[in-house]
Amino acid sequence: MQSIKIAILGCGTVGGGVAKILLERADELRSKAGVAIKLAKILELFPARAAKHHDLPLSLFCGTGKDLTIPESQKFLQDIFGDPTIDLVVETIGGSGPEILSIALGALQNKKHLVTANKALLARHGAAIFGTAVREQHAVGFEASVCGAIPIIKAINECLTADDLHSISAIMNGTSNYILSKMEAEAKPFEEALTEAQKRGYAEADPSLDVGGGDAGHKLLILLKLLFGLDLAVEELPVRGIKEINEDDLAFAKEMDCSIKLICYAKKMDGQVSATVQPMMVKRTNLLSKINGVTNAVRLIGRYAGEHLFCGAGAGSLETGSAIVSDIVFIARYGVKAVRDFAARDCRFKSFNELAFPYNISFETEDIPGITGIVATAIGKQHINIDTVGHNRHSSHKAIFSIATMPCTHAQIQEAIEDIQRHHPSCLASYPKIIPILE
Amino acid sequence: MQSIKIAILGCGTVGGGVAKILLERADELRSKAGVAIKLAKILELFPARAAKHHDLPLSLFCGTGKDLTIPESQKFLQDIFGDPTIDLVVETIGGSGPEILSIALGALQNKKHLVTANKALLARHGAAIFGTAVREQHAVGFEASVCGAIPIIKAINECLTADDLHSISAIMNGTSNYILSKMEAEAKPFEEALTEAQKRGYAEADPSLDVGGGDAGHKLLILLKLLFGLDLAVEELPVRGIKEINEDDLAFAKEMDCSIKLICYAKKMDGQVSATVQPMMVKRTNLLSKINGVTNAVRLIGRYAGEHLFCGAGAGSLETGSAIVSDIVFIARYGVKAVRDFAARDCRFKSFNELAFPYNISFETEDIPGITGIVATAIGKQHINIDTVGHNRHSSHKAIFSIATMPCTHAQIQEAIEDIQRHHPSCLASYPKIIPILE
Repeated sequence: MQSIKIAILGCGTVGGGVAKILLERADELRSKAGVAIKLAKILELFPARAAKHHDLPLSLFCGTGKDLTIPESQKFLQDIFGDPTIDLVVETIGGSGPEILSIALGALQNKKHLVTANKALLARHGAAIFGTAVREQHAVGFEASVCGAIPIIKAINECLTADDLHSISAIMNGTSNYILSKMEAEAKPFEEALTEAQKRGYAEADPSLDVGGGDAGHKLLILLKLLFGLDLAVEELPVRGIKEINEDDLAFAKEMDCSIKLICYAKKMDGQVSATVQPMMVKRTNLLSKINGVTNAVRLIGRYAGEHLFCGAGAGSLETGSAIVSDIVFIARYGVKAVRDFAARDCRFKSFNELAFPYNISFETEDIPGITGIVATAIGKQHINIDTVGHNRHSSHKAIFSIATMPCTHAQIQEAIEDIQRHHPSCLASYPKIIPILE
Repeated sequence: MQSIKIAILGCGTVGGGVAKILLERADELRSKAGVAIKLAKILELFPARAAKHHDLPLSLFCGTGKDLTIPESQKFLQDIFGDPTIDLVVETIGGSGPEILSIALGALQNKKHLVTANKALLARHGAAIFGTAVREQHAVGFEASVCGAIPIIKAINECLTADDLHSISAIMNGTSNYILSKMEAEAKPFEEALTEAQKRGYAEADPSLDVGGGDAGHKLLILLKLLFGLDLAVEELPVRGIKEINEDDLAFAKEMDCSIKLICYAKKMDGQVSATVQPMMVKRTNLLSKINGVTNAVRLIGRYAGEHLFCGAGAGSLETGSAIVSDIVFIARYGVKAVRDFAARDCRFKSFNELAFPYNISFETEDIPGITGIVATAIGKQHINIDTVGHNRHSSHKAIFSIATMPCTHAQIQEAIEDIQRHHPSCLASYPKIIPILE
């Protein structure tokens, strides 16, 4: 193969970035891949708009330059699939519905390598897509699907291959991290920080996938498959977003010398993997606590090499585009050797709540003497060691204080709370908030 | 090829780590490489000691278990080179003299892939080694030569291939970073921090290669070749170590909200590359300032994806061993495709001192009124903008204060100092210390 020909499906933010880099860096990419990389076709419903927006030649687009109808675009898609000179298809349409799955599988079944940034698709249909890739002996590049420009997929698959990576903690949603950073640095409430993120283009009009933790969950599911061979359904991963985080939580975090981050966490122990996405109080001695704004970061811990940290841009047209183009270079260089079998390995999923973890529990109680004793006694009865009892904030007849525990399970904490509710029914003004502490 | 057979030359700290991982992880490594990876032979002058120290079977070692003479070891080396079943040689002997170069070249010429952690050898003889590898079509793996376990070589060669990486700043000597961290956190003088590093095994009995910047320089030279195609002789790279850093510098750094780090720096602009290794004051907003102890970190900046940061263990038996084994896996998987030509590219080396950079200049002067005015005026005459004038410390008839500049060249600062010396001969008690500020 003296050259590799590329078709891009969908020329929005990411697809446009891919096209731009392929055109601008053609010489350098050829020298890195060992073969010429040629952008042959772009399929896009609104070619004129995309060409203008990304400053691309209209001649690269399927059709005459006019907007395409759905039947027209389907015909062009079949042309691309039927064109034996096209070696690799970039899917930058997005979505995880049956049409997109069928496009991804169709590319592979038509003997084209597939490169995609589509985390939702891989989280839901990874087994089908990787299975098809192995059967068809064509590669799937998906570096861009997790943490944009950070080369975390290749770090795991190609670089840290000698180690036994047993734990991951990561900031993989830039929108949430931007909002939490703003809330902490400028003492803004959640809604205000969200509005600012939307104004800057860091959050969608409907931000629920970002701030609800779903997007981060998709990314963690992909990494769980690579790291541990774990095939988990989206619904099986416990996910909690950042909407519930308020200024009291941030104040407790500060008192504990922590920052609050939306953490994707997983740990393998004795053949069992626990995983979760949820806000955690991250100790300031942990570099993840220093990652602010839309930046993403992944911390991996291995048996031999200890801690690794990877930080970089989690999103953006050229940022994500550069990850896709790096996949193209890799596949162009290594061809069929780039096909990987991510077969399920022998490991069991265990609820995160069964892990012993340090927690911060914040209590809203009656503001009367003796309450701290009641709470601390109930916690002690569950054999939970207390690390710190925070300052008591007194607000409108309520006391608010937090207790940081030594490692214990979520279930132990729930037992303690039930014990308080049972024996002192009027003590707790609301159900305590339980946030893991990441050291 | 159903299996790949390995010989390890030199079973010290790193070689022993490699052997241990190859034996412990044989099954996992086979699944990642796609072929079995078999440790066939270890050549070591003191086999019994090494076997005991690393808990390895003595049967793997060349000879009968007794210490080898040099002629014996040379014979065993020729046996390994002449053995057509050995596919890959790991060189973990160290040194950069003609014997080691001849071993490295000999492995390739005898049609064996070469994996090495030897930064000094590659910094001095990279062109010869990589040239031989291309001619013989056998690969050189050298992940372990730069920053131990951090996969920075593959990050550049295999991962960030779409981007135009134009700048690097990195902490690549753990010993120096440990010493500087101790000096800053515990207000220890250099000598005391060095002694502690030696006690903990972080510094050699002769620490000059570490604290003098030479070791970091070797690593930067390797990265300059990968990033910019620049073949620079060891003597051409301006290198300054950390010995001159004292408590005044740390106090000035603190005042400027900086930490002092030994920084490997390079930047490409208009086809010219500037590079240096020297202590810099790193702003606390830059994550490199947060990297403490023996940890290493590399910050790369690219045209498309912006900033990347990679942190991890820079040294250690299993840490460095894991990087070597990851190279073995990579070469076992990709074979001859892993051969890379690092041919020189068209770029010129430009002195770091010609770069416009913000600097901190600390002055030791007579303690009389008017001095700040004299110094500030001389700086202004060279068209250097002043960012901050630090507090004046008064000690035994001398005043010590620092001035932080906006970006200017080292030559401009030298001009200003000469101007002061010319017109106010008794003003400066010593030649001012000039430290770049990294933002």
